[in-house]
Amino acid sequence: MNLNACYLFQGLSASQLDRVTAIAKEQQIEEGHWLFHEEQPAEFLYLLKEGAIELVTRVEGVIEIPVSITRPNNGCLGSSALVDPYLYSLSARCLQDSIVLKIDQSDLHSLMQSDIELRCTIMTNLAKKMLERLKETRQEVKIHFMNLVRSVSF
Amino acid sequence: MNLNACYLFQGLSASQLDRVTAIAKEQQIEEGHWLFHEEQPAEFLYLLKEGAIELVTRVEGVIEIPVSITRPNNGCLGSSALVDPYLYSLSARCLQDSIVLKIDQSDLHSLMQSDIELRCTIMTNLAKKMLERLKETRQEVKIHFMNLVRSVSF
Repeated sequence: MNLNACYLFQGLSASQLDRVTAIAKEQQIEEGHWLFHEEQPAEFLYLLKEGAIELVTRVEGVIEIPVSITRPNNGCLGSSALVDPYLYSLSARCLQDSIVLKIDQSDLHSLMQSDIELRCTIMTNLAKKMLERLKETRQEVKIHFMNLVRSVSF
Repeated sequence: MNLNACYLFQGLSASQLDRVTAIAKEQQIEEGHWLFHEEQPAEFLYLLKEGAIELVTRVEGVIEIPVSITRPNNGCLGSSALVDPYLYSLSARCLQDSIVLKIDQSDLHSLMQSDIELRCTIMTNLAKKMLERLKETRQEVKIHFMNLVRSVSF
């Protein structure tokens, strides 16, 4: 698997990518299995090698809202493992049997402490992605807002 | 003004803060004046010294939605100046006569290139803040969603 498929690792050198690969462990996950739950400690970062994983959130603890579907080559899951307070912000469930590369948060943290260039590249990539997601989510708010305006107007 | 009041600069050393202060220029802004508009090139980062500045966005180019109000000691404006594609994601308008510290994006970029520790601290702070804002914005989506569910149910 090409680690560059994960936005976090874009721009790393070949030797830096090798060091990330060295701390990643392959794991098979069955359909329906939860990789993690929101608000739980973000102990692992996951890259998807095969399969499909759905990110969801819950409203009032009951109603589930789908957020996005991750497929191989379009990213990683659990980037909250990189940012204080290190709690998953969403829940992740396998939509079909999948293979993930699992990176222990403490291993990644050690690697980032030992190589400031690597840390800087990863954090810059993360900030960029978070800003993109923020813009997308604001767009959703706008759509809801306009629906509300229209429902009041008519 | 204490630059530490801006989340971006938290954790910088005294000498790093001095170097940031050296590239900041004070500017008075009148009530009603726009600091920047969304989608325009993010050429400056602003810290608020005195006054109040409102962040807003527009829906369908017409309806204005308030996003937040920035006051001295609670942050900075225009952090899109730090992230590719370097376009403001919101618009900022002075709610009252204000004094800002204005930092040229290219000056800050040069400083970050010359000091990787400083760059790494700023990008880590930025990623953390973006994740917080993303969570807050998702919370807004949830509220809209629940209002929608309730309006359909009754």
